[in-house]
Amino acid sequence: MSSLNNIMDSQVLQAFFTYATVVVLKMMLMSPLTSYFRLTRKVFANLEDTKLASPTVDKKLVRVDPHVERVRRCHQNDLENVILFVLIGLLYSLTGPELSTALLHFRLFTGSRIFHTISYVGALPQPSRFLSFILGLLVTFSMACRVLCTTVL
Amino acid sequence: MSSLNNIMDSQVLQAFFTYATVVVLKMMLMSPLTSYFRLTRKVFANLEDTKLASPTVDKKLVRVDPHVERVRRCHQNDLENVILFVLIGLLYSLTGPELSTALLHFRLFTGSRIFHTISYVGALPQPSRFLSFILGLLVTFSMACRVLCTTVL
Amino acid sequence: MSSLNNIMDSQVLQAFFTYATVVVLKMMLMSPLTSYFRLTRKVFANLEDTKLASPTVDKKLVRVDPHVERVRRCHQNDLENVILFVLIGLLYSLTGPELSTALLHFRLFTGSRIFHTISYVGALPQPSRFLSFILGLLVTFSMACRVLCTTVL
Repeated sequence: MSSLNNIMDSQVLQAFFTYATVVVLKMMLMSPLTSYFRLTRKVFANLEDTKLASPTVDKKLVRVDPHVERVRRCHQNDLENVILFVLIGLLYSLTGPELSTALLHFRLFTGSRIFHTISYVGALPQPSRFLSFILGLLVTFSMACRVLCTTVL
Repeated sequence: MSSLNNIMDSQVLQAFFTYATVVVLKMMLMSPLTSYFRLTRKVFANLEDTKLASPTVDKKLVRVDPHVERVRRCHQNDLENVILFVLIGLLYSLTGPELSTALLHFRLFTGSRIFHTISYVGALPQPSRFLSFILGLLVTFSMACRVLCTTVL
Repeated sequence: MSSLNNIMDSQVLQAFFTYATVVVLKMMLMSPLTSYFRLTRKVFANLEDTKLASPTVDKKLVRVDPHVERVRRCHQNDLENVILFVLIGLLYSLTGPELSTALLHFRLFTGSRIFHTISYVGALPQPSRFLSFILGLLVTFSMACRVLCTTVL
């Protein structure tokens, strides 16, 4: 277990573990949020699910609702961005960056994704959502460049 | 290579590797399953794909089918849950949990996702699918809490 | 930090970091590509986004366009395949495979996904896209088998 203890001794990895878990927990919230909208608005994707909101199976409840679709698009955007952050962030943390630089990356990303969710679900005027999305993408891009520079050069 | 050998010495990580691979292999099955339904039911998403089931390019085969959409929703649910399990599970395994606790988490998750796929593709009556989904989410949540407790406290 | 330095000493892991980052960077290109098609073709998913291409909020710009949907399907296919490659590839690299075998896996996968994107976005005749998709899936499957053989046996 000595090598594992050494891994957890790295302050960068410890910081990465914290921020990666926070941003993943935020993303995990999207599933119950979708379920909440589906149940309160009685909008379902599967015929067998309609029994959760109606005494009998009801074909009319299998439909598309703009509020549910908005939450689902936000979840999909998380999938496309948060997971890449966690993957690239792990490789980045293992290349041994400066703690202050790493913290800047992790905090900017976590903040940008929390703001992205607020501006998406709350339908804030653009370009608030666009800017938070771009910021997150640039942070991941910057970490990917660092990984490539360390391994290729 | 000594540190890598040490990493593989950890029984928790070895168990994690096994269960993570099993659940990823299950998820990889969803792609061929979608292709199978697309080919047997002649339902395609792209115009150029219709030639796989018809002698000429046929616009009428670009359509939506409830069976194909069901498999795709199941695949999407896997994407949203299995990948987070593998990511959080890796961080969790590196925090050095008890082997028996870790095995309980890994086995519950793997079982819940296999049952989730059966109940989704087979359209079993609710709440069978809902319960298996929630169980998987709670296992990931429990591991995320352990990671946060270890790194923050 | 000694164990981290050891980790980066492994040539297989170093190669994995390089190819995983290349394939993730390719995947990150899909988001700006979708935005590019949305802006040039004036096709939006959210009402508030229409202001990016029109002086006032315009309901008619919230619509579905075949070119945008094609890029999104390609992005979705990347999500379903590239992320599993990175996850399984990391576990695979830690099982200590031969460098030449590992390089063959990483290069075949990276090449197959770059060709997959070209054939999807360019709508090349089938089975070009199908073969590149299957090749990537088989590479991931082969690495998953190696992980299972190492941990279970």
